[in-house]
Amino acid sequence: MTKKIEVRNPRTGKFDYVIIPPPPRLLAQQCNRARRAQSRWQDLGVEGRIAAIQQWKQAILSRREQLTEALVNDTGRLSISILEIDSFVNSIDRWCGLAPELLQETAKNTSIPFISLQQTTVPYTLVGVISPWNFPLLLSMIDTIPALLAGCAVVVKPSEIAPRFVAPLLIALNEVPELRDVLIFVEGGGETGANLIDYVDLVCFTGSVATGREVAQAAARRFIPAYLELGGKDPAIVLESANIELATSAILWGAVVNTGQSCLSIERIYVAESIFEDFYHKLVAKAHRLQLAHPTVESGEIGPIIAERQAGIINDHLLEAVEKGAVIHCGGKVEDLGGGWWCRPTVLTNVNHSMKVMTEETFGPIMPVMSFATVEEAIYLANNSIYGLSAAVFAGTAAEALAIARQLKAGAISINDAALTALMHEGEKNAFNFSGMGASRMGAAALKRFTRKQAFLIKTNSTSDPWWFE
Amino acid sequence: MTKKIEVRNPRTGKFDYVIIPPPPRLLAQQCNRARRAQSRWQDLGVEGRIAAIQQWKQAILSRREQLTEALVNDTGRLSISILEIDSFVNSIDRWCGLAPELLQETAKNTSIPFISLQQTTVPYTLVGVISPWNFPLLLSMIDTIPALLAGCAVVVKPSEIAPRFVAPLLIALNEVPELRDVLIFVEGGGETGANLIDYVDLVCFTGSVATGREVAQAAARRFIPAYLELGGKDPAIVLESANIELATSAILWGAVVNTGQSCLSIERIYVAESIFEDFYHKLVAKAHRLQLAHPTVESGEIGPIIAERQAGIINDHLLEAVEKGAVIHCGGKVEDLGGGWWCRPTVLTNVNHSMKVMTEETFGPIMPVMSFATVEEAIYLANNSIYGLSAAVFAGTAAEALAIARQLKAGAISINDAALTALMHEGEKNAFNFSGMGASRMGAAALKRFTRKQAFLIKTNSTSDPWWFE
Repeated sequence: MTKKIEVRNPRTGKFDYVIIPPPPRLLAQQCNRARRAQSRWQDLGVEGRIAAIQQWKQAILSRREQLTEALVNDTGRLSISILEIDSFVNSIDRWCGLAPELLQETAKNTSIPFISLQQTTVPYTLVGVISPWNFPLLLSMIDTIPALLAGCAVVVKPSEIAPRFVAPLLIALNEVPELRDVLIFVEGGGETGANLIDYVDLVCFTGSVATGREVAQAAARRFIPAYLELGGKDPAIVLESANIELATSAILWGAVVNTGQSCLSIERIYVAESIFEDFYHKLVAKAHRLQLAHPTVESGEIGPIIAERQAGIINDHLLEAVEKGAVIHCGGKVEDLGGGWWCRPTVLTNVNHSMKVMTEETFGPIMPVMSFATVEEAIYLANNSIYGLSAAVFAGTAAEALAIARQLKAGAISINDAALTALMHEGEKNAFNFSGMGASRMGAAALKRFTRKQAFLIKTNSTSDPWWFE
Repeated sequence: MTKKIEVRNPRTGKFDYVIIPPPPRLLAQQCNRARRAQSRWQDLGVEGRIAAIQQWKQAILSRREQLTEALVNDTGRLSISILEIDSFVNSIDRWCGLAPELLQETAKNTSIPFISLQQTTVPYTLVGVISPWNFPLLLSMIDTIPALLAGCAVVVKPSEIAPRFVAPLLIALNEVPELRDVLIFVEGGGETGANLIDYVDLVCFTGSVATGREVAQAAARRFIPAYLELGGKDPAIVLESANIELATSAILWGAVVNTGQSCLSIERIYVAESIFEDFYHKLVAKAHRLQLAHPTVESGEIGPIIAERQAGIINDHLLEAVEKGAVIHCGGKVEDLGGGWWCRPTVLTNVNHSMKVMTEETFGPIMPVMSFATVEEAIYLANNSIYGLSAAVFAGTAAEALAIARQLKAGAISINDAALTALMHEGEKNAFNFSGMGASRMGAAALKRFTRKQAFLIKTNSTSDPWWFE
């Protein structure tokens, strides 16, 4: 009935791993089991939940090598895998530090003398997390950890393209009985993800706009909240006054880290006419210094393209751009090395908004650079997108950059740096346009969105009259 | 092409008013006009918007009599119309007081030494508000006022069952040019409401669960947020230790105010066995004292049933309950007086959860009372509902009541009083089950939900290295 899914290795191109999606009935059983276990998890209290999650963290860290190896096999890159694990561990500690205060019940007097207000939170019982392949560990856990701390049970359906990292997590999970009952990992592809929505009380999805819209509609049919973190086509604007050394280094990193396979990677660069030549020459020079992580995983900075389908999209965007007149200054093609798909950092000029490389999500280490004559033009171009996830602005002073940033339709905007939102999770932000929907994944809202707010309104005077007699 | 809609007068049963839904193309034009005007409204700043809204309030107050008359014709009741206007005016003042702080940009250092965070809010451009007939003024404005203050343009589509109150608002609006351009009222029924969703960036809907689910799905297809405030079947639990005088007075009010035509009215009453007889006798005695507001609008407390369709539903629930064994102690039928439909406060016993009167929203002055043997049973019965809007618990002490309240699945729970949430808007609350979805209409969230949160992440050190070099 259910068919196994063979998983490709991004370095070798070989299908060397298998996952087996649960039949719908088994999925329903697993979800029901987690649902039943949730009340015990909630009753543990936030301190009890913190203890269990910290125990899991320790059990994971004692298997750090296995986890790293699994992530390397999933994604074909090493340094980012190490970064993923570090960030995951940090995020556990950060949320464990914040959760007690965020979940604390508050009591206060109100503007009405005879009513006091007690405010509490009630977790959604069962949260579904459908996560992508580009940062398999980090993005499967970014919603899961705060949801667990809030008191929810969680069912995670990681991408079928990079599912190997789950095995070491599961072994570690077996050591923490309280947590094992309320944190379920489910193997499978899109069909399993779609089925999962039928059994949960809230769904978090990170992935493409097309699938995100389907998730939103399925959630609306079931009348449950959907929190969507979708694609981006993040612009960087470089003003004439910008420090070109800084801007080129930051934008290069923001565009090519994880081989550009990041929703918040810089995918469009708008540079003031007067510094355009200087800028892109420097960018090309710096791009040349980066090497492929080939033949060994320790060599170079640029890993393989993880998803074979994405290699086709990157190739398509590049071919179309060149056909329409774009000029390639470095990189520029998707190549097969030892069975994996690779692409060197690629700088393009002579680009415009008729090209996919300037309008659709490429998800590769591709840096199309366009010049602008006026600041108004730069803002218009940056906002001329169906996306609105994040952005970056570079200028001589933060104030000058901020004045531009205020006019951009994007949730998080880095000033004189790129993709700071990958590093700093304190700022609340909402996606614009089709880049997402629902409560912010950053800031305090990221945890609170997994709870319903409940208000107890307490009549405090001792007369026997109800308030409407007063 | 568009057909006019004749509007029934709830006291006379005569169709004495007409509205004309705009053809879809005109609706689109009106929405586009509001959308274009929004940036000027936003640029006014919160103080400028407060000034305009206060000016509108004054213009409305100078037409208070016309507005009252229109509301009386819409709803057939006087004292609640006066209350609506007072509450509307109060809510304007309250939001004008709160908005500046809620919309203030904040700046702070972060846990990362070289990043500072500036946090701001960006209003959704065009908000659609689809409002119901039970509190025509209050519920058309409860979302509109905070949305306007947040900087949005708003298109309101009031119910076609009670649309007369709009005319005096429009006359007053004509005196405030800045506001007139961004606050549009649209006449029409369900079809116009459905069309409206196609033109806005966010939709607020107050009404039935059935329509609410359609709104949620239409919004998901368009990928816009939907904030839904739907039905309720609010339970009251009266423990053995409760003050029966207080409980009967409070529950009576909570059940019959506005003839029970309130989403947060008490529709199910669970009373401890030992005080059951005493409780319902007292409740019946107090119910008998209330009179119909007939023949004149000044006489008595209980107005007519506003929507003819609802009269049929109330009648159906009562007939079915009696057929299944319920006993009526007072009231008990829907009667035609002078063309309007009326129902006296009705107390029922011998009821159970096989009856619609205990499970579906009745929206009339109906008080079915059921006894319980244990507190666990009371909690089970209260939670045994597809709804979860609000609730009330009565006990000898607030602490005893609170212990029960914590186990109820409802957003706002009054302790030793009923429906306090109608009075006190400070507590944040989310609906449970099918009673609603989306950010809270109460508390600070009620205004913030009309904005996207935007984070500016500012690199503050002066080196030319981007953060990933550090």
